[in-house]
Amino acid sequence: MPNNQLTIANDIESLQQALLLLAQAGKTVALVPTMGALHAGHAALIAQGRELADVVVVSIFVNPTQFGEGEDFDKYPRTLTADVQAAQAAGAELIYAPSVNDMYPDGFATTVSAGEMGKILCGKFRQGHFDGVATVVIKLLLRVMPHFAIFGLKDYQQFCIINRVVEDLDIPVEIVGAEIVREADGLALSSRNRYLSEDERKTAPMLYQTIANVAKAIPKTGTEAAINQGISALTTAGFKVDYMEIFEEHLLVAAWLGSTRLIDNVEIGE
Amino acid sequence: MPNNQLTIANDIESLQQALLLLAQAGKTVALVPTMGALHAGHAALIAQGRELADVVVVSIFVNPTQFGEGEDFDKYPRTLTADVQAAQAAGAELIYAPSVNDMYPDGFATTVSAGEMGKILCGKFRQGHFDGVATVVIKLLLRVMPHFAIFGLKDYQQFCIINRVVEDLDIPVEIVGAEIVREADGLALSSRNRYLSEDERKTAPMLYQTIANVAKAIPKTGTEAAINQGISALTTAGFKVDYMEIFEEHLLVAAWLGSTRLIDNVEIGE
Repeated sequence: MPNNQLTIANDIESLQQALLLLAQAGKTVALVPTMGALHAGHAALIAQGRELADVVVVSIFVNPTQFGEGEDFDKYPRTLTADVQAAQAAGAELIYAPSVNDMYPDGFATTVSAGEMGKILCGKFRQGHFDGVATVVIKLLLRVMPHFAIFGLKDYQQFCIINRVVEDLDIPVEIVGAEIVREADGLALSSRNRYLSEDERKTAPMLYQTIANVAKAIPKTGTEAAINQGISALTTAGFKVDYMEIFEEHLLVAAWLGSTRLIDNVEIGE
Repeated sequence: MPNNQLTIANDIESLQQALLLLAQAGKTVALVPTMGALHAGHAALIAQGRELADVVVVSIFVNPTQFGEGEDFDKYPRTLTADVQAAQAAGAELIYAPSVNDMYPDGFATTVSAGEMGKILCGKFRQGHFDGVATVVIKLLLRVMPHFAIFGLKDYQQFCIINRVVEDLDIPVEIVGAEIVREADGLALSSRNRYLSEDERKTAPMLYQTIANVAKAIPKTGTEAAINQGISALTTAGFKVDYMEIFEEHLLVAAWLGSTRLIDNVEIGE
């Protein structure tokens, strides 16, 4: 049984009340922003938060502004009760699970954008997605004002964009990237994995295996040939590849298996 | 002689050092963001700051990102020595006059936007202007973290946009609007008034007189007729009117006299 007390705040007032108590007690805070549907990857983020700070705050908010038309906002898994248990078990002491109206009251109009960096790679296929991400993350950071904020490196482009906007807006927080947690067969943990059919689940680990192979092949065959071969291998296996590209010393991929879009990345070069 | 001590910070490090001393002394802070070329309107903002807070911080930064191509960024008046004296005389204790590189280091990419509200009125004629304004104001607020920030109501659309983004991003500051300061003949004080030729200066007060008349005429003749008559009067007098429109219970106008663009507004209704 976890022995950490858990407070659940559903609006900004109760959040700030809880944060005030923590500040008065002189506690340092790490924020783990999530969209819920917690899995072992999130638990690792929370565990890392516990190492860095006295208290871990987990936000749970399926942010509508980062979903495009026709994307999976409506069907995105919402599992609040299980999430609360998982967050507490992993060591969180405060959960902020606001409503859409608490985050975006009537008249809300502001967008934070990282510019070009949000328009390439996933941003090309998910227009406006990273503006939605940047805006909600800045809001969460300004509401919680944590000492640390921890993000998974699976969403590597997102991680780079968050670093950019936080630095550009001088938000006083240390952004921490947490290593990707994978299944035994290599598949990166993702809330969207639960969309996969049994067959798709068997194919899915190829995504990681392929980029790991491409990353190894790049020094030998050159970037273009290696990537082309990787895309071709994924396509043959039944993936529809949105892109496979190098970005900030990482090889990034996004590909569909049926109606599920998966992303992954590996660091390149020695 | 003013007896307030004056500190001048030219970069974020010296700014934060000065702010730390103020925080340690338990002082409340009011920020007056300016582009320099200080006039009696700015002095009134600083005086208002003194009433609200222990210490007034004046930022002086001609922000390149709020000027469009072909606008007056290069010729915008830069009078730092006189500005420092004027700010001190008005009661400021800390001046933050950063370089462009201090505000926007290499790689800077972030934009804060108020959406549609920044695309109408002046935003239609000055594309990207209000994104530049919103971004630099958010940056200044997050760097200074003042208790109050004071803006002149002459830039009424700007004032509304700043309120919007500050509220939307949950920045913990009270935004204060300061009444327009006018010359004896009614011309609203503006750093750009110094661009006016002697003849243009004589014509310029018509801008205020006209919108004051239009505001009075609206209940009698209706909005459209009153505004059309106002635009026509200004055009006859030699103005080139960008727009005259009602926005948030104010009648706003922007018009050119020669190569100088002037704006003004009056509250409408009783």
